[in-house]
Amino acid sequence: MTEPLLAHGQLAGLDEIAHTGVDSTRGGYSRHVFTPAEFELREWFVERAVRLGLDVETDRNGNMWAWWGQPGPDAVVTGSHLDSVPGGGAFDGPLGVVSALDAVARLQATGFLPTRPVAVVVFAEEEGSRFGVACLGSRLLSGAITADAARVLTDADGVSFAEAASAAGLDPNQLGRDHESLKRIGLFIELHVEQGVGLIHHDSPVAVASSILAHGRWRLRVTGQGNHAGATGMRERRDPVVAAARAVLAVEDAALASDDGRATVGRLRIVPGGTNVIASSVDAWLDARAATDVATRALVADISDRITEATASSGCSVELIEESWSGVVEFDAELAARLSGTLGGVPLLPTGAGHDAGVLSGTVPTAMVFVRNPTGVSHSPEEFASADDCIAGVEALEALLRSVL
Amino acid sequence: MTEPLLAHGQLAGLDEIAHTGVDSTRGGYSRHVFTPAEFELREWFVERAVRLGLDVETDRNGNMWAWWGQPGPDAVVTGSHLDSVPGGGAFDGPLGVVSALDAVARLQATGFLPTRPVAVVVFAEEEGSRFGVACLGSRLLSGAITADAARVLTDADGVSFAEAASAAGLDPNQLGRDHESLKRIGLFIELHVEQGVGLIHHDSPVAVASSILAHGRWRLRVTGQGNHAGATGMRERRDPVVAAARAVLAVEDAALASDDGRATVGRLRIVPGGTNVIASSVDAWLDARAATDVATRALVADISDRITEATASSGCSVELIEESWSGVVEFDAELAARLSGTLGGVPLLPTGAGHDAGVLSGTVPTAMVFVRNPTGVSHSPEEFASADDCIAGVEALEALLRSVL
Repeated sequence: MTEPLLAHGQLAGLDEIAHTGVDSTRGGYSRHVFTPAEFELREWFVERAVRLGLDVETDRNGNMWAWWGQPGPDAVVTGSHLDSVPGGGAFDGPLGVVSALDAVARLQATGFLPTRPVAVVVFAEEEGSRFGVACLGSRLLSGAITADAARVLTDADGVSFAEAASAAGLDPNQLGRDHESLKRIGLFIELHVEQGVGLIHHDSPVAVASSILAHGRWRLRVTGQGNHAGATGMRERRDPVVAAARAVLAVEDAALASDDGRATVGRLRIVPGGTNVIASSVDAWLDARAATDVATRALVADISDRITEATASSGCSVELIEESWSGVVEFDAELAARLSGTLGGVPLLPTGAGHDAGVLSGTVPTAMVFVRNPTGVSHSPEEFASADDCIAGVEALEALLRSVL
Repeated sequence: MTEPLLAHGQLAGLDEIAHTGVDSTRGGYSRHVFTPAEFELREWFVERAVRLGLDVETDRNGNMWAWWGQPGPDAVVTGSHLDSVPGGGAFDGPLGVVSALDAVARLQATGFLPTRPVAVVVFAEEEGSRFGVACLGSRLLSGAITADAARVLTDADGVSFAEAASAAGLDPNQLGRDHESLKRIGLFIELHVEQGVGLIHHDSPVAVASSILAHGRWRLRVTGQGNHAGATGMRERRDPVVAAARAVLAVEDAALASDDGRATVGRLRIVPGGTNVIASSVDAWLDARAATDVATRALVADISDRITEATASSGCSVELIEESWSGVVEFDAELAARLSGTLGGVPLLPTGAGHDAGVLSGTVPTAMVFVRNPTGVSHSPEEFASADDCIAGVEALEALLRSVL
């Protein structure tokens, strides 16, 4: 071992980035793609990889690859992402990158010589927190989103993805499906902190993923009539905040009426957003998920119907626009069973959270390892995994790499 | 006449500032106190006043006074404010300042020699759009808010009013009730665009104010449990966005059940505010108004009860905190009747909108003139007053000044 695995009770890599992208307003971390905090994490990754003797390259879509040995084909690739949701936790994303680097360090420390190329990957904009589409880096890589569609995505300040990518040193004309990078991948294994309560009742610090819920994002645009909050009588109003509130409750009602579907409004934009101003419009983002594609489509159709009914007499116009869609992912069952066996029969676990591994699973052999989350809380500063469980995750990843290299 | 009154169909002054503080995101204008746009408007005001031979001074609270003749006592003061709500209209505030300057120019052009000092005033942070308390400049001047309470107000970026005032060249230790400035005011007349439908059915371009509804601002803080939007089942949630939606509907229900009370939520802050994140907390600002102090207090008490009931089973904690309060204003009836008579018997009109004139009415003789708003829309880019009505407003203000000088 050349690198200390633990410092202050966490994985060393997590400690090293613990001060990067701290969000003093929301708590936790805000590390959005192509922002100063995320550039700092990229520099940290390069420095860490170079110390392990890996060669780092950034692909046409902003994903980073640190190669142990000659790049592909038939490479074993592991890693995750470094970006976060606004005010996110310390583990979602970075745990998979840090564990991948540590697993490589462990293999190197024992003199292990891989028979296949190995890469540690960092995917860009996994959370979609800046440009709205989750797993944007892996979607571009695999062609799940077109370059044309990606280039025109905009952040909250109106900066397009093309502009941000250009400022980050990428060529916006070279975005899109990257066959060269894809064909190098023989197997992708992503380690990730568990984001629900799935592992709490198992006596195991790790699990292998079985499936991911279908999920997507929609934007609800509610348009009313901006006006003065004091001078406008209640019956003279077309207030989009009131209509949006009815819509939020319609979303909850539909999800509660579904078979374990989940539907969330976690982000709103009120225009203009003044205390003494009746708003003129509201954008509300809907995240909806269910066990199958059909169930998710049915949930969103029900949400749409309920919103239409709930806002019919509001005097506001309401529009629901799809921003992204990910069909249900069933990971390769044979591969998952084999990896679970290699780890002594750890549980196979479905998840409601989307991942780059889910995007890539349609294109290359893909598996995931989950590390136990004792509270199930994620996308929050309270997200947690114990040091012992993080180490167990690294050991599991090391064992899986040994078994396939 | 030394100044052209009209250009492109509007008052010249409004045209001159038409490009300052344009909000390209929201539409309309965002001109918040001590921001670059508002500083530009202050410079414009000084330049305009100096061209009329007026001496401009900024008082200890950031309000500007342009004196025609030796400052006070027993001065006739007229003016309004230059700041705006986010994405506000062109008339709310600036119309009163431009009309005051034009009325002085008209008096000067006819060789009129006032028998009392005259000042054109610009009050700071009338909308409370940056620091949350409306009429902050006139409240500080009159002592309606203490310096201690004002200094610790913060904007959305966490900048305190003391810090912003200091950066603007004021001494934060000198904020507060300004007896010297107050005792100069013999009469304050504020001209303002009408902000409701009150003047539409009168055959008059102007009115004199009779009263202002009682009003105040409250912050509703809803605290839940941040979590992952996909990995958290609907029955495992404590989602503050859902609880806030119920609160918004409770606000509307209470106002609809009241006797012409108005209650509005026009601004929300969701923490952390990610699409795939169940929020951890929501701040919602409530603006509530009614015809009397008792009725307004009763409305807010009813709102509070309804919110408590509506959110009882949400698993979220809910708190309603008063941020500002303005009792009902009955303008001096004798003065209002006299001014109405001077203008040939124009209507006396109540309003639901707060004004610096309302704050000062408890301390000095105060009156208001309203200019017709053909749609009643205000606090919106669609706010409007016709050029003819604006000219009628200036003529009315000129006539009133002649009658008291």
